[in-house]
Amino acid sequence: MNQKYPSILLENAVNEFAKLPGVGRKTALRLVLHMLRQEPQATTDFAQALVALRNDITYCKCCHNISDAEKCAICSNPSRDASVVCVVENVKEVMAIENTMQFKGLYHVLGGIISPIDGIGPSDLEIESLVQRVKTNEVKEVVLALSTTMEGDTTNFYIYKKLQPFDVNISIIARGISIGDEIEYADEITLGRSILNRTPFDQSFKI
Amino acid sequence: MNQKYPSILLENAVNEFAKLPGVGRKTALRLVLHMLRQEPQATTDFAQALVALRNDITYCKCCHNISDAEKCAICSNPSRDASVVCVVENVKEVMAIENTMQFKGLYHVLGGIISPIDGIGPSDLEIESLVQRVKTNEVKEVVLALSTTMEGDTTNFYIYKKLQPFDVNISIIARGISIGDEIEYADEITLGRSILNRTPFDQSFKI
Repeated sequence: MNQKYPSILLENAVNEFAKLPGVGRKTALRLVLHMLRQEPQATTDFAQALVALRNDITYCKCCHNISDAEKCAICSNPSRDASVVCVVENVKEVMAIENTMQFKGLYHVLGGIISPIDGIGPSDLEIESLVQRVKTNEVKEVVLALSTTMEGDTTNFYIYKKLQPFDVNISIIARGISIGDEIEYADEITLGRSILNRTPFDQSFKI
Repeated sequence: MNQKYPSILLENAVNEFAKLPGVGRKTALRLVLHMLRQEPQATTDFAQALVALRNDITYCKCCHNISDAEKCAICSNPSRDASVVCVVENVKEVMAIENTMQFKGLYHVLGGIISPIDGIGPSDLEIESLVQRVKTNEVKEVVLALSTTMEGDTTNFYIYKKLQPFDVNISIIARGISIGDEIEYADEITLGRSILNRTPFDQSFKI
């Protein structure tokens, strides 16, 4: 339904909010009216934070994660193990893995995964720089931590093929039954893999 | 959980998005990363639309609706019936009623409803200006179109008491069974009111 807005300024603001993923026109209007109820300064702060991010954003020249400096806090931390590199899709996965406090190596952020449907090929991702990194640095292990989707598996396999010529161990994060899941309701593929990749009992409680 | 962001610019932008109602930190991060994937111009446009709205917004001096001019398009339309004024909470209700194309009068936007819990009293709303409008203009009927909540009913009653001394008809939008609802599942209060306020059969199909 084509809504008629009483003000062109209001309509423009609603249009901009409605461009965001998952935000419809009703939600956009609700958000805009919320902003109108706040102090004008709040809107200025909001706008400035976004513009500052978009214009001044830098990416770590080493791992390609979002960063405030040329080299990010993780890459420039001497206590991290530079011989292990974890390959992830995005900054969100870096944050998720950092939260577990189980990984002490470095990261390599691809900036996406191979997805022919979305027109994303290997050359659009930071795969060549990963190969260079493995070739020139003392990387002993590459851990693949991509989503367990068709696209993730395609990307995993592509990277595996690219890195195979080099003297580096390639591992992949364990797939299995999630903590808290009931075996009865687990899907067959996951359950099958969790049996194939079973771990010695005393190892599985290390965390 | 206290997330650690790899960039202060990123964190600031996420914080700003997370201030919006219904937007959590995960959604905020998703929205910010979406913006980073767009052209920088898109973010500038977004920010400018919001700042322009917040700084240049004007309200109609007559009905207090959001407007681009001193008098809004509805109030300045000579073909609208100035003798009927519909009292609504917000611009959203104006748009909803306009969409029905069943109302040809003018509006009066209160800017909220009486809600002691949120600290909103009659003096925070455009009630006094409504009384002035009824007193000085040729208003013959005031239609109350507020939500059927406790707060809405309180506000309805307050306005009713304020306008009673004047020579004006006060009506309230019909409450009853929604179109498409099944009688069996309607709540008792609504069903009771729909029987009390029954309308002659030939009138009820006018729309």
